[in-house]
Amino acid sequence: MPRELNVAVVGATGAVGRVFLEILEQRPFPINHLRLLASKRSAGTRVSVRGQELMVKEATLDSFDGVDIVFISAGAGVSRQLAPTAVEKGALVIDKSSAFRMAPTVPLVIPEVNGQDVEDHQGVIATPNCSTIQLVMALHPLHRVNPIKRVVVDTYQSASGAGGGAINELREQTRALSQGKSVTVEALPHQIAFNLFPHIDDFLPDGYTKEEEKMMAETRKVLHDQTIGISATCVRVPVYTCHSEAVHLEFENPMDPRQASYLLNEMPGVTVMGDSAVDSYPMPWDLAGTDDVYVGRIRKDPSISNGLAMWIVADNLRKGAALNALQIAEEVLSRDCLEIRSPSASADV
Amino acid sequence: MPRELNVAVVGATGAVGRVFLEILEQRPFPINHLRLLASKRSAGTRVSVRGQELMVKEATLDSFDGVDIVFISAGAGVSRQLAPTAVEKGALVIDKSSAFRMAPTVPLVIPEVNGQDVEDHQGVIATPNCSTIQLVMALHPLHRVNPIKRVVVDTYQSASGAGGGAINELREQTRALSQGKSVTVEALPHQIAFNLFPHIDDFLPDGYTKEEEKMMAETRKVLHDQTIGISATCVRVPVYTCHSEAVHLEFENPMDPRQASYLLNEMPGVTVMGDSAVDSYPMPWDLAGTDDVYVGRIRKDPSISNGLAMWIVADNLRKGAALNALQIAEEVLSRDCLEIRSPSASADV
Repeated sequence: MPRELNVAVVGATGAVGRVFLEILEQRPFPINHLRLLASKRSAGTRVSVRGQELMVKEATLDSFDGVDIVFISAGAGVSRQLAPTAVEKGALVIDKSSAFRMAPTVPLVIPEVNGQDVEDHQGVIATPNCSTIQLVMALHPLHRVNPIKRVVVDTYQSASGAGGGAINELREQTRALSQGKSVTVEALPHQIAFNLFPHIDDFLPDGYTKEEEKMMAETRKVLHDQTIGISATCVRVPVYTCHSEAVHLEFENPMDPRQASYLLNEMPGVTVMGDSAVDSYPMPWDLAGTDDVYVGRIRKDPSISNGLAMWIVADNLRKGAALNALQIAEEVLSRDCLEIRSPSASADV
Repeated sequence: MPRELNVAVVGATGAVGRVFLEILEQRPFPINHLRLLASKRSAGTRVSVRGQELMVKEATLDSFDGVDIVFISAGAGVSRQLAPTAVEKGALVIDKSSAFRMAPTVPLVIPEVNGQDVEDHQGVIATPNCSTIQLVMALHPLHRVNPIKRVVVDTYQSASGAGGGAINELREQTRALSQGKSVTVEALPHQIAFNLFPHIDDFLPDGYTKEEEKMMAETRKVLHDQTIGISATCVRVPVYTCHSEAVHLEFENPMDPRQASYLLNEMPGVTVMGDSAVDSYPMPWDLAGTDDVYVGRIRKDPSISNGLAMWIVADNLRKGAALNALQIAEEVLSRDCLEIRSPSASADV
């Protein structure tokens, strides 16, 4: 039985933070003291967690004295500002943002895939982007028995991936349009109600978005394989929660859809829907609030040798964010590696 | 100047039929007499076209006496039932359904791509599926200078692709959910409001849907190239009008994104948005009611040699259906081939 920990949550009032606190009610993570932190604007909010009413305080550089683990989910800027100080004060930072994911000394972890990587942490462990997590959860059990050469993935990402403001914007725009009024666009780059756009995060000079680039780079890092080719188009759609992904894989050797289905069902945290790609398939409306990554429409891709196509849906706030972060902390405790073991350890990239 | 024609429209009160009548107001197609036909249920509806108020009549086997061209957009069953009689009575049938598309003696035509094929008709010319038309409009100008070996395409298809009932269902479900009520599902296989699903048309034994199979087979037929590999996932999304497509191409030779952009912009009926894939891109909300196929996010696909990725949006009721059908008729008139020229002509597949 591990000792009870002092835990801080930065971004406690955000879309991911709220789900994180819900998950704390559902999983027996050993907490002695829980400190809820957010921006100055949200400080003062009262939140009930595990039967206690807690007051959210402003996150500052002085917030981390005596803290064992800090979960940060408040954007890359906040992570960059606060994480170094938290680590200096002896805390382990589990970071949801993109700030440190590709740093060579920062493990990027999906516990079911590369849980052992947590042992190499130097004070920060990153959790991948939501769209990467559900993709890699479905690639890993296949890749380890039959190497994947190339992944083509197009996403259908929900508003909640852009935070609580985008959720409200989808709701408000929908209401405005149904009353014949004009819409207000603030949280997302364009109207999202009854619309969609291939634009998530900023554009890079090569024409890809950062979101697409994250999927490519993070997938390679988590799978410890820099040879996988990945082409992605990331699209925001008018759905509240759960990201969906259409995936087309090319393997080194033939992959029978029934074998793929078997391997995926054996993977912890993955549920296959539909025995042979027909009749049933995962959908975002049904799966919001669930923990697993759901895979359906598994079928041979006849356009290429050794091709396989499939369809993946997962709750981007749970497995895509808050749940994966808490699972990383559980992995750290089960491997008893809260403290930094080897300050000179070289990372996997 | 061609003579004025007697024209019948079957499915005049449906989603595509209504748009077809709108387009007749906008294009100078030479009509002597216009006969509007629909199911018994819709007979009696009055519609104003080109300044005349017309009464919709029930479509029967006796509807086609003296008619030169019949446009049918009322589902494959109606086409199968009515087209043979219309052809027997001397009319040219331009059919929007999937009933005859793959028949060897039926040209499958996108006028900008394979307009010359209309000359081989045996009384029926088919217009491809909406999702095929916008894809092939963007493939053709590239394929003719640098053969495409493989296409991966994932679609974001609007409710209107499933007809007027699906449009109403999206509207009604959205209203019900915003009032905290339960939704009614009738026109589509599942709730579409704030949801999406990879299920358009029926499932086939190989795990693909008929919609996906259509994209594969029709693309090869229109391009006269049976060697192109195509993998598709077709997804219904909560958008009213315009289908969007994320496309990943593999060419025989390198294809520079700037060259692709140039070639696409030179193609009649195609508009490129965004000079180099950044800043602007086509979106369904903006483009409903327009005639062109819009292409954006044109960029190199680094996951494969000679790869290119892009994003395509078009109004599925206009270029994807009604407009393409009328353009086929215009092509027939300009080539003066309303009559069957060579009853023994062999088709292209």
